[in-house]
Amino acid sequence: MSALANSNRATTVEVITIGDELLLGFTIDTNAAHLARALASIGVHIARRTTVGDNAAAIARAVAEALERSQGVITTGGLGPTSDDLTKPAIASLFGREMILDEAHLAWMEERWRRRFNRPLPTTNRAQAMLPAGAVKLDNHHGSAPGIWLEDERGRWVAMLPGVPREMRGMLADTLLPRVQARVAASTVVRSLTIRTTGVAESLLAERIERTESETGSLNVVLAYLPSISGVDLRLTVRDVPPQAADQALTEAAARLRRTVGEWIYGEGDDDLAAIVLDLCRSRGLTIGVAESCTGGLLGARLTAISGSSDVVLGGVIAYHNDVKGSRLGVDERALREHGAVSEEVVRQMARGAREATGARVGLSITGIAGPTGGTPEKPVGTVWIGTDIDGEVEARLLRLWGDRYEIRERAAQWTLEFLRSRLTEVAALPERQA
Amino acid sequence: MSALANSNRATTVEVITIGDELLLGFTIDTNAAHLARALASIGVHIARRTTVGDNAAAIARAVAEALERSQGVITTGGLGPTSDDLTKPAIASLFGREMILDEAHLAWMEERWRRRFNRPLPTTNRAQAMLPAGAVKLDNHHGSAPGIWLEDERGRWVAMLPGVPREMRGMLADTLLPRVQARVAASTVVRSLTIRTTGVAESLLAERIERTESETGSLNVVLAYLPSISGVDLRLTVRDVPPQAADQALTEAAARLRRTVGEWIYGEGDDDLAAIVLDLCRSRGLTIGVAESCTGGLLGARLTAISGSSDVVLGGVIAYHNDVKGSRLGVDERALREHGAVSEEVVRQMARGAREATGARVGLSITGIAGPTGGTPEKPVGTVWIGTDIDGEVEARLLRLWGDRYEIRERAAQWTLEFLRSRLTEVAALPERQA
Repeated sequence: MSALANSNRATTVEVITIGDELLLGFTIDTNAAHLARALASIGVHIARRTTVGDNAAAIARAVAEALERSQGVITTGGLGPTSDDLTKPAIASLFGREMILDEAHLAWMEERWRRRFNRPLPTTNRAQAMLPAGAVKLDNHHGSAPGIWLEDERGRWVAMLPGVPREMRGMLADTLLPRVQARVAASTVVRSLTIRTTGVAESLLAERIERTESETGSLNVVLAYLPSISGVDLRLTVRDVPPQAADQALTEAAARLRRTVGEWIYGEGDDDLAAIVLDLCRSRGLTIGVAESCTGGLLGARLTAISGSSDVVLGGVIAYHNDVKGSRLGVDERALREHGAVSEEVVRQMARGAREATGARVGLSITGIAGPTGGTPEKPVGTVWIGTDIDGEVEARLLRLWGDRYEIRERAAQWTLEFLRSRLTEVAALPERQA
Repeated sequence: MSALANSNRATTVEVITIGDELLLGFTIDTNAAHLARALASIGVHIARRTTVGDNAAAIARAVAEALERSQGVITTGGLGPTSDDLTKPAIASLFGREMILDEAHLAWMEERWRRRFNRPLPTTNRAQAMLPAGAVKLDNHHGSAPGIWLEDERGRWVAMLPGVPREMRGMLADTLLPRVQARVAASTVVRSLTIRTTGVAESLLAERIERTESETGSLNVVLAYLPSISGVDLRLTVRDVPPQAADQALTEAAARLRRTVGEWIYGEGDDDLAAIVLDLCRSRGLTIGVAESCTGGLLGARLTAISGSSDVVLGGVIAYHNDVKGSRLGVDERALREHGAVSEEVVRQMARGAREATGARVGLSITGIAGPTGGTPEKPVGTVWIGTDIDGEVEARLLRLWGDRYEIRERAAQWTLEFLRSRLTEVAALPERQA
């Protein structure tokens, strides 16, 4: 056990996040997760994460304990100008260093205030130019508090980063990661790759994948199923292998997943299905109009959230009330009466109406029961019809969605995008529009 | 210092969240914040929060250290049936307790599997019925892993909760909080109340409030400004006062804020402006139609996200392309040509068009430049016109919004809701619609 602990000590760091806001639960600690992923990708293992409040003794004690267990410590928070910000003096005192004024940083801050706010630097901000003796400044391109690197004679180090996520992330990527990487010279890393699927149940995916999973396992790649509202993400992770081997193993495992369940895969990482559908339409010269009932504009909002969507999305009709389905989308009264608003007949007419109302080549339509009320034994909450009309070729699909109102609406929009994606990728080449 | 530390020790607990997923940053730790807020509200102070991975030695070490510093420890995670779940045996071993089979719990689990899945209990799940000797079970109404309360002869305790947020939250509220509250008999608590504002800049709010802030301070109430996309939340917090005094101080401080900046306050806590606007409309017999350009359906989606919105929201038109503004909303070509799509003239016509297209009494309209492209020196990114038409009375407002595309669109929808709210609350009683 102690041998293991010693061998770990060479490549582990600990993270300490600082702030009463964190400790009291007013702020959710997203910095910690970001730091962990970034460090793992360069082979640095975080053995422990600690959160303490704005209290100099608590900060110093936590840092001292962490340095006993690890090679280095990264802190976030407590570098601002207010009296709560105690990180620097607490750690300086732990290292037995004086706080001294960094004239160059003071001058930079004074200039920044003059330029930005046309005001002299407030006295409270002067504390940000006080640094522990022997500290190395880490540049902050997104704020005025520099990060600090402090090292003792035994080579143990503390890196102090700001708590504001944008500042922390910038400084981590620009300055700290290269510095840590040079120091740890990690022979192995933890890396992951996420493959995004939608429109398929987790159990069906798993059944299909299990046939090849033994293979996947041979490369040390672990597969995790991450179901969410947008679909089931498949996260592939390799641990404790050399960087190049890690990337190769992930690429191979991803290729295997594409062969096995490729029909449901729409992207990787943070890919947004709306952006992918827009690209598909753009490359085929297709324009989109929408007709939404239970989603009330969500599908249009998803599509237009993407910058540059205006060359594809023309608009649409939110037909929440049946009268609007009739008057604005041309859904006939007979269909509404005989089949109900949530029916194949109506969703088909809505898809056509979406095209006619906007002059688009593609019409997308959604009508369903998002709940929590409005369900019947025949059409329970989660019953949603979706439709796609491509140049007059209409297809409709019945969905049985699950979850609460929010989830059902989000899923309905996502599955409609997937419905269009699958139709566009099935059809190798669409004919040009007839005049 | 040590006197303070000792006096703290009587009412502090530490939280330890367990899991490789947390440590590797794949999962963001939301349990910790929830626990902190819940404990603070009953007067329990969390002095430190620690995260360790799925490693029995690391778990035992962290718990042992925390018990040295505090009266009790709450852990989350590591109670499931898989081999990763090491919390119970690690802590049992730390307390010198054997793991013994809880026959009653085993029988309950077997019954549950038979009833739910029509299958015998898998062998791997039997581990969940193994409990440390002397443990008290904490009921889990949302899952099969019970929580565990373990106490040593010195009265120090560890409460082990599941890591799944829904299970953790249920168990905390139902079982653990009352138990901890009885034990700590806290004389003082930390409580907070959030007042929600929108449609006003933080600086203007602060200027107005500063006049009364000295008063607020006298009651020990701290005010924090929390700007977000939906507006500026004002969080009032009282610390270290008796429960009743805390609630009274918050109520009084909130009343003072209502007097000072009430015109921008739309709600408290988690209140959604869309729900508030719907209630206002409902009570006045008003129906809504929308006309959206740059928001592309977001306003409609916000309104229809609220369950029961169908008696107020009739529908609307997403007029992303100018042709749709003309053909579906009756915006005249001259206005588009002479003033451009982002103009007072067009937003007024859109508001009227929203009413006419849907037959609603209220029309809401939005047209603007969400960016990142499309801005000009006269109409930079963030220039948004919003309109409200109530029974034919049209008002329009020019917004200069900030942020990225996502933020500008979200703010545009939110400020439009606020525009309608302020108009509806200004007008004491609207006349009934003329036939």
